[in-house]
Amino acid sequence: MPQSNNKKKIIIDTDPGIDDAMAIFVALQSPEVEVIGITTIYGNVYTTLATRNALHLLEIAGRTDIPVAEGSHVTITKGTKLRIASFVHGTDGLGNQNFPPPKGKPIEQSAADFLIEQARHYPGEVTVVALGPLTNLALAIQADPDFTKNIGQIALLGGAFAVNGNVNPAAEANIFGDPDAADIVFTCGADVLAVGINVTHQVVFTDADRDKLAQSSGQFAQYLCKILDVYFSYHHDAYSTKGVYLHDPTALLAAVDPSLITCAEGVVRVQTVGITRGLTIFYNKQKRFGEVTEWSNKPSVKVAVTVDAPRIVNLVMERLMNS
Amino acid sequence: MPQSNNKKKIIIDTDPGIDDAMAIFVALQSPEVEVIGITTIYGNVYTTLATRNALHLLEIAGRTDIPVAEGSHVTITKGTKLRIASFVHGTDGLGNQNFPPPKGKPIEQSAADFLIEQARHYPGEVTVVALGPLTNLALAIQADPDFTKNIGQIALLGGAFAVNGNVNPAAEANIFGDPDAADIVFTCGADVLAVGINVTHQVVFTDADRDKLAQSSGQFAQYLCKILDVYFSYHHDAYSTKGVYLHDPTALLAAVDPSLITCAEGVVRVQTVGITRGLTIFYNKQKRFGEVTEWSNKPSVKVAVTVDAPRIVNLVMERLMNS
Repeated sequence: MPQSNNKKKIIIDTDPGIDDAMAIFVALQSPEVEVIGITTIYGNVYTTLATRNALHLLEIAGRTDIPVAEGSHVTITKGTKLRIASFVHGTDGLGNQNFPPPKGKPIEQSAADFLIEQARHYPGEVTVVALGPLTNLALAIQADPDFTKNIGQIALLGGAFAVNGNVNPAAEANIFGDPDAADIVFTCGADVLAVGINVTHQVVFTDADRDKLAQSSGQFAQYLCKILDVYFSYHHDAYSTKGVYLHDPTALLAAVDPSLITCAEGVVRVQTVGITRGLTIFYNKQKRFGEVTEWSNKPSVKVAVTVDAPRIVNLVMERLMNS
Repeated sequence: MPQSNNKKKIIIDTDPGIDDAMAIFVALQSPEVEVIGITTIYGNVYTTLATRNALHLLEIAGRTDIPVAEGSHVTITKGTKLRIASFVHGTDGLGNQNFPPPKGKPIEQSAADFLIEQARHYPGEVTVVALGPLTNLALAIQADPDFTKNIGQIALLGGAFAVNGNVNPAAEANIFGDPDAADIVFTCGADVLAVGINVTHQVVFTDADRDKLAQSSGQFAQYLCKILDVYFSYHHDAYSTKGVYLHDPTALLAAVDPSLITCAEGVVRVQTVGITRGLTIFYNKQKRFGEVTEWSNKPSVKVAVTVDAPRIVNLVMERLMNS
């Protein structure tokens, strides 16, 4: 695979997952980016299965040149039972299709070590697109004091900013998955872009879009149409929407082309205990507090507040059909 | 004082407080309501001073016929140091004017007992307008299993729904003052209307409004113009607004005339621990969660979402100038 220096180098940290599969395929079809690795994490499935699915998806795409590094099997948050969203993505994470096991294997390096090494090798150039709980990134931040300086950007799908969550009324699934890890990432000082469900719930891939995808001869389009049933059923039951939310593709594309969203800047902290565990609170800096707060003297991050949803849906369609 | 049966009976639970003083005066000038009592609480000042200020304000108004019942000096939330907002209202709670002590005394009954007794005496007819932390109401709910059935409505100034708080980015002052009490009130099953700072920050009493008030010969207008300096200074420093937020008068008027606001209905829970202690999370019921959440099977409340701010400012002005 030719390595072009003017492409944005991205590592996708992922728990595939149906919309993760869409995001990975869209990334592989995006001329602006070069996927230099995939790291895996629990979330939509357990980590072992996430690794298997990542390898499988790269084999489907004919891109076994891209290394897969397996991530953490446990949360940083102590005493947390993993929450696995098999009811959203199927027990295999890919729409209950019983795909054969992949031929490939993950590299020996852990996800955190891979992230640290790549960031060090290409200082300021690597974007991590984080589509699951943030454990691997938090481990990298904890293990290497230079990681936050070396990493180019962390673009993450996570949080429910000023809206209800999707695990419960307070929390979004990726942040809920490892709240302590998320708080470490949000306050680490790196260039962090958070794309929350306040934004991704505006990006709906409709039944009609799916029909159009099904008529395409593109291999990614054909593959995805097979696995999308479970994801559509879940959305119909949970949200009464005639379509599905494009969470992961939106975060991926926002990292590729920042003009697809607008952002606010401020400090994000994560509640790590109690009934709102996993809640993200963004401080917009409009009020000056007399007292020192838990948001004081923490670095700012970018939080997506608006999104050009039609353009994202079009980009996803185009790139998946042109394959 | 003539008792008219078609007036709405209200008890004001309050920590005066400059905007509390405005709300009390507006209530006394409102032909639609009959103030049947004032109960006191810590918040803007300690409870002892809140009682003194309530008695003082009723003496200024010539309404010493209205009983004042002293409320709790401590939170229900264990181990909480009281947070007193003297930097907003002055050390005396009334703009540092060193008013002489009142001649009157509170009644022997505690605030909670007074609330229980009045609700029992006028079942379904009494509205409590709660302008401070919710300790007295929570104590009444805990002490009398019939209180939530007997009370007509609880209209409270509290919460920061989908916006930053005013104590810190997560919490609004009245809920932060006693988070456990607030959670008890929100989930008690009574008819609860919450007016949060997401709404009251839209109701600005400007410098120009104040100048107009100063030119009025109304006794309440004249009194308030003396005490408003501290409150204006605080708002200028904290928010850079050329005016002050009419928190308490807005909650009072919303209770008097529901057409001044629109509401959403859903379940509110309060986070009682951690960095977002005092946070209010409203569940709008748009998503169906597969799992049981802390919001499941709890009674709904009304949360104000829009407000006719110009009409509220006009009502406040009219009623204070016509005195």
